Parts: sequence; structure tokens; C-alpha cells
Amino acid sequence: MTKTELKKKKVYFSDHFPSHSRLLRVLEYQRGGNIKVSMLDAAPLVICDRKLQSHPEVISWLENYLVYFVSGGEKIKNLDSLPRHINNILRIIKNKKIIGFISLGGGSVGDFTGFLASVYKRGVPLIHIPSTWLSAMDSAHGGKTALNVGEVKNVIGSYCFPQAVFTVKNLLSTLSEKERESAKGELVKIALIKGGDFYKEIFTEYLDKKNSALDLWNILPQAILAKIKIIEKDPYEKKGLRRLLNFGHTLGHALESYFHIPHGEAVLYGIVFAIQWSHNRFTLSPSFLRQVFILQTKKSQLYSYLKRIPKNKLNQLLLHDKKRGRGEYIDFIFIKGPGKVFTETVSVSDILTEVQKQILLHSK
Amino acid sequence: MTKTELKKKKVYFSDHFPSHSRLLRVLEYQRGGNIKVSMLDAAPLVICDRKLQSHPEVISWLENYLVYFVSGGEKIKNLDSLPRHINNILRIIKNKKIIGFISLGGGSVGDFTGFLASVYKRGVPLIHIPSTWLSAMDSAHGGKTALNVGEVKNVIGSYCFPQAVFTVKNLLSTLSEKERESAKGELVKIALIKGGDFYKEIFTEYLDKKNSALDLWNILPQAILAKIKIIEKDPYEKKGLRRLLNFGHTLGHALESYFHIPHGEAVLYGIVFAIQWSHNRFTLSPSFLRQVFILQTKKSQLYSYLKRIPKNKLNQLLLHDKKRGRGEYIDFIFIKGPGKVFTETVSVSDILTEVQKQILLHSK
Repeated sequence: MTKTELKKKKVYFSDHFPSHSRLLRVLEYQRGGNIKVSMLDAAPLVICDRKLQSHPEVISWLENYLVYFVSGGEKIKNLDSLPRHINNILRIIKNKKIIGFISLGGGSVGDFTGFLASVYKRGVPLIHIPSTWLSAMDSAHGGKTALNVGEVKNVIGSYCFPQAVFTVKNLLSTLSEKERESAKGELVKIALIKGGDFYKEIFTEYLDKKNSALDLWNILPQAILAKIKIIEKDPYEKKGLRRLLNFGHTLGHALESYFHIPHGEAVLYGIVFAIQWSHNRFTLSPSFLRQVFILQTKKSQLYSYLKRIPKNKLNQLLLHDKKRGRGEYIDFIFIKGPGKVFTETVSVSDILTEVQKQILLHSK
Repeated sequence: MTKTELKKKKVYFSDHFPSHSRLLRVLEYQRGGNIKVSMLDAAPLVICDRKLQSHPEVISWLENYLVYFVSGGEKIKNLDSLPRHINNILRIIKNKKIIGFISLGGGSVGDFTGFLASVYKRGVPLIHIPSTWLSAMDSAHGGKTALNVGEVKNVIGSYCFPQAVFTVKNLLSTLSEKERESAKGELVKIALIKGGDFYKEIFTEYLDKKNSALDLWNILPQAILAKIKIIEKDPYEKKGLRRLLNFGHTLGHALESYFHIPHGEAVLYGIVFAIQWSHNRFTLSPSFLRQVFILQTKKSQLYSYLKRIPKNKLNQLLLHDKKRGRGEYIDFIFIKGPGKVFTETVSVSDILTEVQKQILLHSK
């Protein structure tokens, strides 16, 4: 049911990689009827995380494509290296016409490839084949791309919605438990935003037990659909509706930047902070607090981080966060219960005060 | 009449620079109703060609703005220097919220600023104040931005339509005759594409006499309107209609790249070549040939260039031209008479053969 709905939105689930002809159909669809491309001098280009080279299915699949290998991680999102990458890519492309970019990697490779797809010859189609649970659940569907300038994250970017997302079980199921763990932040986030049955499933079943890749694979479609439904209401972030997806991200991004911890983990800390702040401001219901009690285990680590980040540094990182509303003010996402997230404008100094308050409260 | 129509399309003509409040109104309009910006911590950023610093009206006008000075010319369009420029700009911006980019310069500054506007925080509004006749007539209205990678022009770019274009008489009328001359290429192009009365005015009156800045100022609105009307039919170049604006550009871009000659001049050579090729293929009417006879004066210089550019280099430059259709094939614009331009697909080797043919024909 969920998968059928996602198919209409061009998110596909399969055991194996999509065939060459399948991909070409998806790409040609975008090009419209009036331009026919001879496949002899036109091709898609795959931007592939080089650590996937050892995956047996990846190797044979790549044989059909022009490929540019990159190292995944925040480094590839640095604007400084963009000219070098584009020069390398032009050498690979030679005189071929590129009919699309395919990202085969995690969130950073997807961001890089998406940005390229949106500016190469003023835009060519994009396909995502996410190779991490986090990107499969989150960034592959967001249509947002971003590059960092020095320490400032996501200053440069574009909107670039993929022509299709192929979710490949054989690729994702080989990932380590640690990789599954790092998807938890976004999973918890989307469950809290959506509420309802999905929230119950995540908080009363999924988070409670030791999970297998199969569990996550089965939950994936619901998480994706919940995210896509929010995006569709406000794809270009004109109405502020999409901003709800930043739940946990304001503080999360700052911690991620400063401590270089994985995005999914950082978001989880951000969520714990946001729930605690919401409780301090609005007093949350005891039943809701009981349900999200499982997140409490993260508190010691959160406050240990918050103690170690210098106040002026945190201030600076919060100010540069792209989700800020205006000047010193930030649209912060609070929660009153499952499915009840909302935005309120706070000042950066409000956040800093709350950080100190929570540190004190926790150490008591 | 023309000016009234252009006002609706947000192209304004005035003697002086727009006032600060006028500009802010234009920018706030774009931001929609739900986000109010306090002007204390939000501002537009002007990207200004540093050679305009000596213009008295520019100096006083800039006092109200954050300004980043750049050197106009192809260099600024080089992708390699983009990270450095963005780092500099971030230092100027500090913690301010940028509510728009204003380009004050010619085509290259406009391209650079437009690209920035389209990728800074995933897109902020853009305003053009063109400081050359060429950009006032052409690139400021096109909504296309482009950066070069090495010698390959316009590989990276975006669509970024300006929120408004302010055409300032006091800025344009101080420009040299040489500057007026370099706008001639695009003026001739748009006249040939449009045909009708505008074509007659340009070919039987304007080109015939020694022109003043006032003449060009008076003709400007018609040239702009003709261009905008074509763009509106196909803003994102999906239907091939906009491609007609590339009349004279296929060969023109190659000459511009290789000999580093001004764009307007290069386009004029491209037009002369395209008219001659059209005549060789379709036999143009004697009356049309008489009317465009004035362009014949460019022939000696055109063929002198064509003799000096190595065949393999021309081949390579033509292949990389972004207007190429597929692989070795290029959508070349031919003309059968005023207002009768059309696209035909030719191979790069067709063009090279025609180049040789015309060189021979001319030397006879």
C-alpha cells in the first residue's frame, strides 16, 4: 500500500540495482518528446562513493556507466574542492552528452551530485541510489542540495528534486549495525512529527528491541512517505511548513559541526534538547514523556557535549545555521506531543540560556 | 508604449539610480507576506564592478549598501575563483541576512552575481543594474547565469530571472563609443530575429549613421522587449524556441573564446558567417542581401580570424558550446530573411567544411 503510493512518487524498492534500460527510461522521460538522444554519444554519469567499489553487485552494475569515484563524507561538500571535481568530471565526460547524474552513495555524495546536477549545463536530471539508511530515509527525497564554505555548513545550495530514487535492498542490508543506528535520529524525528500509528510503531516496538536490517527495510517506506508528504506541501520552503522537518536540527547541526559526529546521532541529541525545552516551557503530558523515555539514555552524552562547546562558538554556529529566520532570531521547532510539532521564533541567546539551564538541571 | 509594457515586466528606465526604498520594495515583494525583515540585521548586497567606483553617482549611491567589488571580465566567471569570492563575501556579510543580490556591472558581473543569487542559501532575489549597453540590452533580461571551467565557457550555470532590471541613463550615457559599438552584435541579432519595423529602423537608419548614446538609449526599450518576448515563450529552453536567440553565437562563442574578443563583436562575426551560409544553402533574396550589406564590412576581419584558428581547436570549441544539441551535432540558426530565423541540425564537420568554403570564396 505504502509502496504503491511511493511508486507514483518515483521511489522504488527492489532487491537489486535497476537495470540500465530502466534507468534510461526514467531519464529520457524527463527530457521530453522533442529531443531524441542517440545513446552512442550520450550517457548518464554515476558519482559513486569509492568505498562501494568492493560491493560485488556494485562492480558489475557500474560496467554500463561513466563513473566518477569520490570519497563520501563532509569533505566532498566543501566548496573549495568543487572546481577540481568539475575539472575531473569534464575529463571523464569528454565530448559525451550527459543525460543525467546518478548519485550512488550516502547523504554527502547525494548533496554533491545533486548540486552538480542542478548547475551542470544549467541543470540535468538526477537519480539517487542511496547507500546508507540515513540517506535512503531522508536526504535522497528532500530535493535539497548543499555545500559548505569552510566551517559554515550548507551556505551554497540548490533545490534539485530527483527524477527517481531507487532503494536497493542488497545494498542497504549489507550495512553494519552502526549504520542502522545512525539512521535512528531521522527515524525518531519523522515519527514524532507524524505521530499516529507510525509514531507508536517506532516508539513502542522498533526502538525497544534489537533491530535487524530487515526491520529497518520494512519500516523504510512509511518513514519515506511521511517525509515526502511534508515536502510536497512546501517543496521550496516558501510557506514555512517544511521547516518542521528541522525538528532537532538547530542544535543538532551545531554539535555535528563542532564535534564532527554523525548527522543522525547529532539530530538525536537535538531532539532530546528540544523535547526537554518543550517540557520546560509547556509541561508535556506524563504519558508522552514515558513514551519518549527511551531517548533519555542520550542525555548524559548530550550534556557532556554541551559543556564542552564554548559559548561563543555555539553562538556563532547557531547564527550561521541556514534555518535561522532573521538575524539573531531562529525559528525553533518545539513539540507538545506526537504529531504536534510547531515553530516558534526564539533568539540565539534564548537557546544559550536554555542550554545552561538544562546542563544545570541535569547535573543536579 | 514599449516602456509601459516593460514596466509590467519589471524593466525600469530612469535618469538616476533607483532609491534605496524603491529597491527594498522590489526585494520585499519577492519574500512574500509571511516573513517580515527588520532592516537592521538584513540587507541587500551589491556586487559592483570596481571600475565604476570613479563614477560620481555610483559612489554616493553605494553608501546605502553592503558592497563587494570585483573586476569585470571573463575572469570573474571562472569557476576556480568562486570559492575565494564566496569566502570574501561571507566576511562582508558577517551575521547579516542577505535579502537579495544586486549586480552593478556588465554581463560578466551579472552572470557571476546571478549564479551567486541562485545558489546562496538555495536562492535569494536578484536585481540587475547593467552598466554596459550590451548587458542592458541582452544578458540582464535572459535569466541565464554561467561560469566557465578553464577554457570551456558556460559549463556551469543556472536559471535565475531577475526580480527587476533598472536601466540608468546617467550610467549608460557616459560610456564610450567603443562600448556602444560592442552592443551592436546583439542589436543586429535581435533586429534580424524580430524583423518588421524594428529591423527596418536598425538596418536603414541606426546602422547607417554615426550614432550617439541618445540614439541607443531610445532604441534600447524595443530591443529589450523583443528579446523578452522570445524568452517568455520558453524561459527554461525546454521547447527550443529560445534557441533562436543563439543566432550568430555558435561560431561567435568559438571566436570569442579563442581570440578573447568582446562578445558583441564576436556575435557580429557569427551573424555574418550565418547569413553567408544561409545564402550558400538557400539563396537569399537580393533585397535582403542589399539591406544587410552593411555587415559585409566585417567579412575581411571574420575570415582573417577563421584562417588563424586551428581546425582542431575550432572543432573542440564548437563541441563544447553549450548550445550543441547532441554529441557531434549542433542546432545551428539559419536565416531566410528578416524575422525568418530557424534551427537546423548540422554536424560539427558541416560547420568546419563551410568555414573552409567561405574562406576560399572570400579570398577569390
